[in-house]
Amino acid sequence: MQRNKFLPDILTTLFDRRRSARNDNDPRDIRQLCLALLAEEGKVSGHKLAEIILARYRSLSDENKLAFFQFMNDELDINADQLVDLAKTYAETRATQDFERVTQAAAAGRRTLLGRLNQPNGATADLVSMRVDLLRLMKSHPELGRSDIDFSLLLRNWFNLGFLVLKQIDWMAPASLLDKIVAYEAVHEIDDLDDLRRRLSPPDRRCFAFFHPAMPDEPLIFVEVALSDHIPSSVDDVLSEGREPLLPEQATAAVFYSISNCQQGLKGISFGNLLIKQVVRQLSQELPQLTHFVTLSPIPRLNTWLNSQREDKLIGAKAAAVLDGNATDTDVRALAAHYLLDAKSSSGAPFDPVARFHLGNGAEVYDVHANADSSTNGRNQSSGAMVNYLYDLKRVERNHEEFALEGKIVATRAIKTLAKGPFKAKPQELTT
Amino acid sequence: MQRNKFLPDILTTLFDRRRSARNDNDPRDIRQLCLALLAEEGKVSGHKLAEIILARYRSLSDENKLAFFQFMNDELDINADQLVDLAKTYAETRATQDFERVTQAAAAGRRTLLGRLNQPNGATADLVSMRVDLLRLMKSHPELGRSDIDFSLLLRNWFNLGFLVLKQIDWMAPASLLDKIVAYEAVHEIDDLDDLRRRLSPPDRRCFAFFHPAMPDEPLIFVEVALSDHIPSSVDDVLSEGREPLLPEQATAAVFYSISNCQQGLKGISFGNLLIKQVVRQLSQELPQLTHFVTLSPIPRLNTWLNSQREDKLIGAKAAAVLDGNATDTDVRALAAHYLLDAKSSSGAPFDPVARFHLGNGAEVYDVHANADSSTNGRNQSSGAMVNYLYDLKRVERNHEEFALEGKIVATRAIKTLAKGPFKAKPQELTT
Amino acid sequence: MQRNKFLPDILTTLFDRRRSARNDNDPRDIRQLCLALLAEEGKVSGHKLAEIILARYRSLSDENKLAFFQFMNDELDINADQLVDLAKTYAETRATQDFERVTQAAAAGRRTLLGRLNQPNGATADLVSMRVDLLRLMKSHPELGRSDIDFSLLLRNWFNLGFLVLKQIDWMAPASLLDKIVAYEAVHEIDDLDDLRRRLSPPDRRCFAFFHPAMPDEPLIFVEVALSDHIPSSVDDVLSEGREPLLPEQATAAVFYSISNCQQGLKGISFGNLLIKQVVRQLSQELPQLTHFVTLSPIPRLNTWLNSQREDKLIGAKAAAVLDGNATDTDVRALAAHYLLDAKSSSGAPFDPVARFHLGNGAEVYDVHANADSSTNGRNQSSGAMVNYLYDLKRVERNHEEFALEGKIVATRAIKTLAKGPFKAKPQELTT
Amino acid sequence: MQRNKFLPDILTTLFDRRRSARNDNDPRDIRQLCLALLAEEGKVSGHKLAEIILARYRSLSDENKLAFFQFMNDELDINADQLVDLAKTYAETRATQDFERVTQAAAAGRRTLLGRLNQPNGATADLVSMRVDLLRLMKSHPELGRSDIDFSLLLRNWFNLGFLVLKQIDWMAPASLLDKIVAYEAVHEIDDLDDLRRRLSPPDRRCFAFFHPAMPDEPLIFVEVALSDHIPSSVDDVLSEGREPLLPEQATAAVFYSISNCQQGLKGISFGNLLIKQVVRQLSQELPQLTHFVTLSPIPRLNTWLNSQREDKLIGAKAAAVLDGNATDTDVRALAAHYLLDAKSSSGAPFDPVARFHLGNGAEVYDVHANADSSTNGRNQSSGAMVNYLYDLKRVERNHEEFALEGKIVATRAIKTLAKGPFKAKPQELTT
Repeated sequence: MQRNKFLPDILTTLFDRRRSARNDNDPRDIRQLCLALLAEEGKVSGHKLAEIILARYRSLSDENKLAFFQFMNDELDINADQLVDLAKTYAETRATQDFERVTQAAAAGRRTLLGRLNQPNGATADLVSMRVDLLRLMKSHPELGRSDIDFSLLLRNWFNLGFLVLKQIDWMAPASLLDKIVAYEAVHEIDDLDDLRRRLSPPDRRCFAFFHPAMPDEPLIFVEVALSDHIPSSVDDVLSEGREPLLPEQATAAVFYSISNCQQGLKGISFGNLLIKQVVRQLSQELPQLTHFVTLSPIPRLNTWLNSQREDKLIGAKAAAVLDGNATDTDVRALAAHYLLDAKSSSGAPFDPVARFHLGNGAEVYDVHANADSSTNGRNQSSGAMVNYLYDLKRVERNHEEFALEGKIVATRAIKTLAKGPFKAKPQELTT
Repeated sequence: MQRNKFLPDILTTLFDRRRSARNDNDPRDIRQLCLALLAEEGKVSGHKLAEIILARYRSLSDENKLAFFQFMNDELDINADQLVDLAKTYAETRATQDFERVTQAAAAGRRTLLGRLNQPNGATADLVSMRVDLLRLMKSHPELGRSDIDFSLLLRNWFNLGFLVLKQIDWMAPASLLDKIVAYEAVHEIDDLDDLRRRLSPPDRRCFAFFHPAMPDEPLIFVEVALSDHIPSSVDDVLSEGREPLLPEQATAAVFYSISNCQQGLKGISFGNLLIKQVVRQLSQELPQLTHFVTLSPIPRLNTWLNSQREDKLIGAKAAAVLDGNATDTDVRALAAHYLLDAKSSSGAPFDPVARFHLGNGAEVYDVHANADSSTNGRNQSSGAMVNYLYDLKRVERNHEEFALEGKIVATRAIKTLAKGPFKAKPQELTT
Repeated sequence: MQRNKFLPDILTTLFDRRRSARNDNDPRDIRQLCLALLAEEGKVSGHKLAEIILARYRSLSDENKLAFFQFMNDELDINADQLVDLAKTYAETRATQDFERVTQAAAAGRRTLLGRLNQPNGATADLVSMRVDLLRLMKSHPELGRSDIDFSLLLRNWFNLGFLVLKQIDWMAPASLLDKIVAYEAVHEIDDLDDLRRRLSPPDRRCFAFFHPAMPDEPLIFVEVALSDHIPSSVDDVLSEGREPLLPEQATAAVFYSISNCQQGLKGISFGNLLIKQVVRQLSQELPQLTHFVTLSPIPRLNTWLNSQREDKLIGAKAAAVLDGNATDTDVRALAAHYLLDAKSSSGAPFDPVARFHLGNGAEVYDVHANADSSTNGRNQSSGAMVNYLYDLKRVERNHEEFALEGKIVATRAIKTLAKGPFKAKPQELTT
Repeated sequence: MQRNKFLPDILTTLFDRRRSARNDNDPRDIRQLCLALLAEEGKVSGHKLAEIILARYRSLSDENKLAFFQFMNDELDINADQLVDLAKTYAETRATQDFERVTQAAAAGRRTLLGRLNQPNGATADLVSMRVDLLRLMKSHPELGRSDIDFSLLLRNWFNLGFLVLKQIDWMAPASLLDKIVAYEAVHEIDDLDDLRRRLSPPDRRCFAFFHPAMPDEPLIFVEVALSDHIPSSVDDVLSEGREPLLPEQATAAVFYSISNCQQGLKGISFGNLLIKQVVRQLSQELPQLTHFVTLSPIPRLNTWLNSQREDKLIGAKAAAVLDGNATDTDVRALAAHYLLDAKSSSGAPFDPVARFHLGNGAEVYDVHANADSSTNGRNQSSGAMVNYLYDLKRVERNHEEFALEGKIVATRAIKTLAKGPFKAKPQELTT
């Protein structure tokens, strides 16, 4: 796994920015310091207290981190009984003062604490890391989910879409940032900087990321784009070493072939929809001759679904053939199309998570391809099949609306024919 | 080597993205648009909806703004009855899911709306301006205070101290920014840029401001500092045109002679305490020979108080003499010292608002001066008297704590003597 | 005169960048230090020697500066006899080594010295200032012209057009730079920054300057441009306070109404031709709808010439009427057109220096206007008349060529008719 | 606050301006275009002509480049006979005008041509590349050396030390720049960016380079520095993968272990001396506790010299043993010390080129080490031996002076003892 290889270096880079807390000879423990930060003292020396607490936290063992979270979860919770009373009063009075009391009572002490911790330089990144710990510890201590609701609420406010900054990342970017792109790439693995150069340096390649001003050297999400004079049917072609680059002016299509979220600590806060649309807008302005904005996307759960269909009377044999590598390209494409348009989870949403994301954004199923991803991962998850989703900004809103309200999936006529063709019956519902 | 460039770059990017709403031919009115932004549609096209709503809002008449706020206040309020039920459930279960429901129910629709409006570039500044309108309309429609509680809560999150950027403002700053310093100066009026040049250009003058990355061309608060080889007893000297500048290396004191909040829309969100302390820290590093960090502050309510003392047996005559311009410097200073240490409002806090701010920050009363501010304003509010508050970072926390808990005001022995000297009895309590 | 008012401030700004020479306890005088810099020692410690010499020079009296220039002029001259011998040898051998000897012998010691002085930070600006001194002292000591030939040659190399950087200057520019624009404006005086704001801040105004990387806070030359929907006939309109700004997209003409050289020390090194053409190119890209790039230029020697024509039989009476303010607009325009097309100096070039510059650049006489400049200066030099020169990039080369080889002046038919109309005979040749 | 941004901004502007020649449908050949650039036409359209000529040149074959250089060399030479006459006149008159004529006649047409070519953006880099071609073609056509004298003279002016910009290069630098560091490293080869990361990313490593504003993406020379708590005796240790980094505050020595010139086209123009001294100065300020600034340098011609000593009665046997890898460390060190202090070329300068460079800069021989460089190159050129030269800024000037005038080499007592020890007689003089 690539991620670990670079992490030490990344930490080294962070090293000089990050200072240990000045003068931490405070005799109080972290719990007492938190209470002080919440009390009167926090008003004047909150900055320094927050520095000390965050530095202390960073050096805690997992056991002590757990204790810290339990303290927040239990001792800094809301007073629900008081909230009941205050809400009752407000229901009657509608008075401003009573509304204020409800508002305050509904905000747990831990929410105030986290807000006050976010004062020193680098604190935002620390709190994002703290949530990574929390999410990990929640697996064995699900009751900590209450605290995560407050984390999530604050992070959603702080990582408001209005605060994000879109930056193009090319081969002129700082090497320290490029290390992170290598580490965070989640779709098509990047070996090292020399490998990344092939994705950033040629004139027909683009990469865009969102940043937050309080974490200027941490990308939040990035997308890799290939400019092309056709809609590619294989990521192997897109990434091939020997290919001849295109002049940007000759491109007709922008192909989004990889989107990676970078921050586990921002789980549940979605940037991808806005990223794709801002990149479409920016590329349209730079290269007005572009006519198609498509993804070249994995179909991560295709094989799982095919497996579940082995016994199906209508498609079981073909599904098995695909899984065994004995199917024709047409059969692979037909089953993939069928899967994308028809396989649903118990909630009624598309069974495929990537499909859910793009269709939910208002994209359309444009084409499917066999033998499109020959990597181990590609073969294991989708028997090498991939899909193009099309973003047509004139239609995304209507598409989204219909998808959200009626579950309607827009696809090209060819894909619909392909999906329908060999099958008489709908596939069974599946549980995710 | 890219380090310094990154943040400014981000700021520039934010700045350039600002545009008027594209294609606003939406037939819906602003209320319907807000409901759409809150509904399913907002998930995919929130950015564009927010752009349109903010553009529409900017062109509303005051009457229509009022209607807009009333819509938010009444139709987008919390459901208090539902909150009561949910809080009761949570009081029993302590379940994560129930906590989440309480949290959601306690957040009014308007809070969600304001959060979703903050997507397009420039939206943060728009929402700050919106609150200026709200505060104005609240005077005649106090019930809108409920909405202001949500504004205030969100702005407090967005203008978290951890997101603020301290910048030094000198004569190399953009003229467009300097125009704003001239406009926002609230203590000692600046005539024009030529006048401002005298406060920024000499080597013994400094100015620092806090900025927020989402409003990069709007200072939030700024402080003007004079480096000096003594603690000045008059702002007239500090601002005099003919004075000979000092080499920074020769200074022993940094004098904070003006602090101005710039954004009415951020009323109630306090940046001054942190600004002063960060500037003290930065100047200490740049000029380690500095020994004193003091303010040269107005005493804005001195005359009001003196007036109320005209009939006092002990000090009435002297108070009248001060107000009539017939007092000796010693009497002016003595009464000012007495006022600062002893005059309280009904809540027990210092009667003087500037004193409340600095003493609350942990500063100490260092000296008082007669004939220190000969401007019309200075004569009207304090008979020309001014005060130095001292910031000693080693003592501010203890001072603050004692001030907050016991109301104790720290002052030099000389000031205490001066304040006590001619009086036998404490002055009466006053209402602000 | 505006220039002096701001100069102290400008110097203050320079102040912190400029440090006095470190450790100048060198016992040698400036002459000995120069010889050391030229000798072996200069190879290793040239940087420090140059710092000391430049700091010493800055503090010299005019008398001592004169002595310094005389030392350079006489003691660091070429050895002409040796050059004769070496050139003879080279004429025979054509050998590389002999060419090198000629090249070295033809370079005076002072040229080498000036090159070695240009090492410390800020040295380039110092040497430009040094030439300002030299040009002043040359008036009474013309023999120093020999040294100026070396200054000129080096500065021409250092201020190579390839090293210049074109920057747009708007109201976001540093105030310290804007002070210099106020100070250096040579055509239409600027009162102060508030006055300059009117020329930079409106959306239909532009200003561009050339900079050299070694003098990043010193503009070399700048041009002020008004975007307009017509070709203005009066600078009073262009500069009027009350006017309504135009949206840039509505402009059809870019009007260059002021070009100012900033550096006396770069006299004889011409940047104006390139500046105008680069600005035309840049504005064409930004605003492709622009159809006309014209100047609105003074006619600085019109009155001088009119005066010389008072006795002329054909035009004397009208010339006198213009000078006395009694002429019709048509007569003013006719005489101005006649002057621009026909009045020559003894060398055959146009009598008017501004006409020489623009026509030499390949511009055309497009229109002339009466009552176009009501300032004292405008009335004194040209009875208020002004002229538009047109830059049509498709024709400037051919125009320049014809002007340079045949003295041909291109003008619109209307101007030619106007110029010819009332006169039968050509005007006399004049001496500049 | 703009200060830091300004220069980078200028650099960016320069960089973006680069474009291929517009509209090159000029029917003239490159020779005719050059003559046009030198003639009247060049005055107004020089920028465009230069663009076309440089674009044409870039696409020439080597044969045609040779023809181009021959044209410059022969047809654009000085008129030596005319120069003789003019120099005679000046020898008599000392008149400014006559000096000007001599100056002009001594400048070959090719020098003027090259100056006028340096107008478009990127031209400086083109001309540096042109000289690379010239130097290559000179090997078979030595008569072109005359042209090189003009190239050299102009480049020396343009790459004046005063125009150079020192930049620290760390792992935040653009990857495109780091690629060049990998490519230009001339002493201890760098495999790829992953290898370079080890030299730039750790907190105890530094790299500094000189840049010229007209070639902002091309380093001219760079030096790699290891911060250390001892003076290292082996580059293998410095570059070892597993080593534990030091905190910068703990370092006592800065070790310059690699200096590389980047631009062949700037051959003969020396930046190394100034680079080392500016880096010493900068590091002294950043880390005042540093006491030693030393190199860890190769001894590139040690083996060559040892070979020439094989027959020497006194040291032949030991020299052979060193070359055969059979010598003790002490003998390797002794012979290396002896070589550095005593082996001279026919001119009397040190036989070793790296020694010549550092001793000429005023450095001292501080220590020598056996088994210090186990790379193939290190074993081949110096049997693995390396040397520390010490830069003591307080002594470099005196050292340089004594070295330059008397050939005196300063070394530590230990090195002098080591060098003298086993030998009775001085070694023979050698030819480089």
